[in-house]
Amino acid sequence: MLSKLKVFLKEQKIDYFLLPNSDEFFSEYLPESEKRIQYLTGFSGSNAAVIFGTKKSYFFTDGRYILQAQNQLDLKEFEIFNMSEKSVLTWVSENLNAQKKLALDPKLMSVNFVNSCKKNVGELVFLDSNPVDKIWRDRPKTNNSKIFGCAKKLTGSDSKTKRAQILQELEADAVIITKPENICWLLNIRAADIEFTPLLLAYAILFKNGEVELFAEEKRNTDSENPDLVKVNFLQPNCFDLRISVLSKSLKKIQIDESCTNYWLYNLLQKNHFEIVNKNDAIEIAKSCKNSAEIFGATEAHKVDGLAVTKFLFWLQNNSQTDEIKAAEKLLEFRKESADFLYPSFASISGFASNGAVIHYHATSKTNKKISGDSLYLIDSGGQYFGTNFFGTTDITRTIAIGKPSAEMIENFTRVLKGHIALARAKFPRGTSGAQLDALARNHLWQAGLDFDHGTGHGVGSFLSVHEGPCGISKRAHHPLLEGMILSNEPGFYKANEYGIRIENLMLVEKFDERFLQFCTLTLAPLDPDLIDFTMMTRPEKKWLQKYHQQIEKELADKLLAAEKAWLQNLVRRFLLK
Amino acid sequence: MLSKLKVFLKEQKIDYFLLPNSDEFFSEYLPESEKRIQYLTGFSGSNAAVIFGTKKSYFFTDGRYILQAQNQLDLKEFEIFNMSEKSVLTWVSENLNAQKKLALDPKLMSVNFVNSCKKNVGELVFLDSNPVDKIWRDRPKTNNSKIFGCAKKLTGSDSKTKRAQILQELEADAVIITKPENICWLLNIRAADIEFTPLLLAYAILFKNGEVELFAEEKRNTDSENPDLVKVNFLQPNCFDLRISVLSKSLKKIQIDESCTNYWLYNLLQKNHFEIVNKNDAIEIAKSCKNSAEIFGATEAHKVDGLAVTKFLFWLQNNSQTDEIKAAEKLLEFRKESADFLYPSFASISGFASNGAVIHYHATSKTNKKISGDSLYLIDSGGQYFGTNFFGTTDITRTIAIGKPSAEMIENFTRVLKGHIALARAKFPRGTSGAQLDALARNHLWQAGLDFDHGTGHGVGSFLSVHEGPCGISKRAHHPLLEGMILSNEPGFYKANEYGIRIENLMLVEKFDERFLQFCTLTLAPLDPDLIDFTMMTRPEKKWLQKYHQQIEKELADKLLAAEKAWLQNLVRRFLLK
Repeated sequence: MLSKLKVFLKEQKIDYFLLPNSDEFFSEYLPESEKRIQYLTGFSGSNAAVIFGTKKSYFFTDGRYILQAQNQLDLKEFEIFNMSEKSVLTWVSENLNAQKKLALDPKLMSVNFVNSCKKNVGELVFLDSNPVDKIWRDRPKTNNSKIFGCAKKLTGSDSKTKRAQILQELEADAVIITKPENICWLLNIRAADIEFTPLLLAYAILFKNGEVELFAEEKRNTDSENPDLVKVNFLQPNCFDLRISVLSKSLKKIQIDESCTNYWLYNLLQKNHFEIVNKNDAIEIAKSCKNSAEIFGATEAHKVDGLAVTKFLFWLQNNSQTDEIKAAEKLLEFRKESADFLYPSFASISGFASNGAVIHYHATSKTNKKISGDSLYLIDSGGQYFGTNFFGTTDITRTIAIGKPSAEMIENFTRVLKGHIALARAKFPRGTSGAQLDALARNHLWQAGLDFDHGTGHGVGSFLSVHEGPCGISKRAHHPLLEGMILSNEPGFYKANEYGIRIENLMLVEKFDERFLQFCTLTLAPLDPDLIDFTMMTRPEKKWLQKYHQQIEKELADKLLAAEKAWLQNLVRRFLLK
Repeated sequence: MLSKLKVFLKEQKIDYFLLPNSDEFFSEYLPESEKRIQYLTGFSGSNAAVIFGTKKSYFFTDGRYILQAQNQLDLKEFEIFNMSEKSVLTWVSENLNAQKKLALDPKLMSVNFVNSCKKNVGELVFLDSNPVDKIWRDRPKTNNSKIFGCAKKLTGSDSKTKRAQILQELEADAVIITKPENICWLLNIRAADIEFTPLLLAYAILFKNGEVELFAEEKRNTDSENPDLVKVNFLQPNCFDLRISVLSKSLKKIQIDESCTNYWLYNLLQKNHFEIVNKNDAIEIAKSCKNSAEIFGATEAHKVDGLAVTKFLFWLQNNSQTDEIKAAEKLLEFRKESADFLYPSFASISGFASNGAVIHYHATSKTNKKISGDSLYLIDSGGQYFGTNFFGTTDITRTIAIGKPSAEMIENFTRVLKGHIALARAKFPRGTSGAQLDALARNHLWQAGLDFDHGTGHGVGSFLSVHEGPCGISKRAHHPLLEGMILSNEPGFYKANEYGIRIENLMLVEKFDERFLQFCTLTLAPLDPDLIDFTMMTRPEKKWLQKYHQQIEKELADKLLAAEKAWLQNLVRRFLLK
């Protein structure tokens, strides 16, 4: 395959072809038809970019995947770089002189990236189509999944109201929405174009008068009577550029959010002489602030999800002969007991001992460890729930002692827990960002000279993406936290080659008083008291643990089997006795 | 005076003249000769800007000074605005149409401000000289104070070494240094051009070869043999523009830091066709990371300063008939007992009860309160120390119970103290900014829905400015904290019209291990145990208090009079018994 690509480059007199691991929507989870890097190189990780040359090629990924890349790539063909040490842009500026031609598929590139690239390269060639697609035999078809609606009972707001809300922020004749989750939110629809997230991959245009043009085939729509789709015209996706050119006759100003717009679309607007207004997509904020129906949905989803996780934790206690893969499957089974569970919200991370220290671990038959001996087992998982009365997305991590944990493990788990509780208990003035709160979750680890190398929290959608903007809790998360946002609280600690610790609950941002906000923890599943050094805990911390576990007992106990219930009640009593 | 200014405007056919309360160096404390707004309007606050019109004028200040402005200004002439509600720029964009002429003294304006202004105003008129100076009778002379050197024992590094260090970052033929404190640091000199800070107000040019041109009269220099002034040429300040024009014949590229360069200078470089390199002044960081001599100096200064404050606190206990002004004078007397004390590092804030709630309070004969009854007394003060063995700058705030403090005062003081201790005890990864740590100092107040409306900490110079960049501890302080920086730790709580609380110590950033930093508290003066609810304190917090007070006793006890010593020892014992 690589040889065919090289022939193409030579024929076209192109020196290099840059291919990122993305699609035109910059989706977090790629559809099979967009996994070009995997097809060409064999590399199966998520974060990568390749600069293909006529002789040698250059492969960029991050620290998580360097080893994997070395195993999966043909090292005679590829030189591998750690992106954090040498970015694609740096490589380009160091290696491409003014005589070199670099080709791109502009649909896969952000506007910002192309603009930075332009400064560094002799000639950028924007390809009309992706050369990989031409040589890709048996390329999987795009997933044209069915489009289904979400009732107002679930969404809390009809599309008409949402459109009116978003139009208030319009500063042009129309806005092009390029984020699939934002279109789904606006129209109260979902589909199954990718794994884990119920998305329809499409562009949409919202006009001043509230009409929407949705670039998806109408036959995919399962409900022609859907009231949320009134004033929505389905258009063929491959007619998008034609439609833009027609619109340019009647419209002058068009709004986009450059941060999530690919260069092809941007260029299309330029070619058609639109006056481009670059503005943050107003749906980002609107979507992130959940209304009461969505909050009800999240609460219900967490009861169902917490029940499954609690059953799983009991099961784990009594199944010493299991392994990472079996355990993850077992948890999925428990989730499937609920009729409202649709599918996981991401690929579970089920890691025992040293595998738990790999932050984005994925158990395979090669790496699968038996969960036995004395160490820690970490499981990070979540579900997409879509019932008749509620919908929601969950994400939870629990770390469990297997055998006899060491004093060091207990101390470090307790530090992580103290950070988790500090954040969960935080009250903060309106206007405070996640960047300001991040240290609360880290401070107790920092006291011991320890830290963890990932953000403390990310936004979570309502039966949408498990990672949702614009807010988070990390040093880079500068957007103010707002009432109704749902965020994860997931501090951790990882000792390479030994063990991993992470405690993750989802929390809702809610009103404390007129000037202050606070968090309300949504996730309902017990923590492992065997991993807590209670002498390190303050009274308010112990009180938080007691209240949290009493709430779990109240919500879940009566839905458990007798043995599960007895186990949970005993566990809760252990917290109450501290 | 105002009428003369109006005549000038009419004659020149200018609609408005914008005057900020600043000098060409953007000094924190203005020399008398630069207090133009005070001369013209009677307003004596620090933060202000006025747009003078031919009829009406518009006065802008911040929330602290609105009342004062209303008292001091002629309200028939001036309309007063709160800057945070309407900035000068907003007013300009709303009120000046394309036909209007706005005049400026470009020496008093930052490059950024002028550039923003240009977008909004029909015509900007850059005046050759400030019209106020022409009508100002008996304008105070510029302070042309004596320039004196600081021995290497104090500075720890000679000017030659410092210049070589700064030249490593030069990206031009020469750099113009526009911050007086940066010139003083680079040349190891000081002067007394303004109050509170031992500055020489001047520009300097540092050339590639290490030579410096200093635009100050040579006769001001008290030591012609000063080794730090080798390769320093004194030039007349009023020849600066001529010199720039001569230099333009031989130099091409010149470096400035636009953030602290006035528009006149910037424009001068443009007119002379220099290629301008805009880069953060490398002295900012170099100066803020104190070397071992400077750290020794700070430590010694804090011993002397702490002794004075401790003696004062004892005195206060036994002088129930004092008032705010007398108390501040008494503290100054104690400071003056040290031969190494030069003068205060800022105007003391000495506020009892409701006056303590005024964050930038300055006691006057009108506002002066007797320190008696049941409330809190807050005193924020500091000194400039210049001895033979050390130099340094201090800044300390103590809040003291007078009579019987209320339970609410005690609870809130304890919350402020818990925040202070959380920050003082913090360890954090290298690369962490003050913005990330700020919440540690606020979290315990936030828990009660309380907060304070100022930053938690600012950098402090070495026998230089008491407010020094580039680091701080606040939500806006995004620069990483570095080893050797000195910062204040001063959380507070203010209940308007009732009382104010602030606890301020200075801290040194020091190495914890290869990856982590920590703070070392420098300030040495006891806290008031009567204001602490020890049941709210954790064990590590009590331990910190015990160790801190034991250190104070160790450093100070033997330098105190018998009665003072007995009082201190008894106080320290109270902490140890908790």
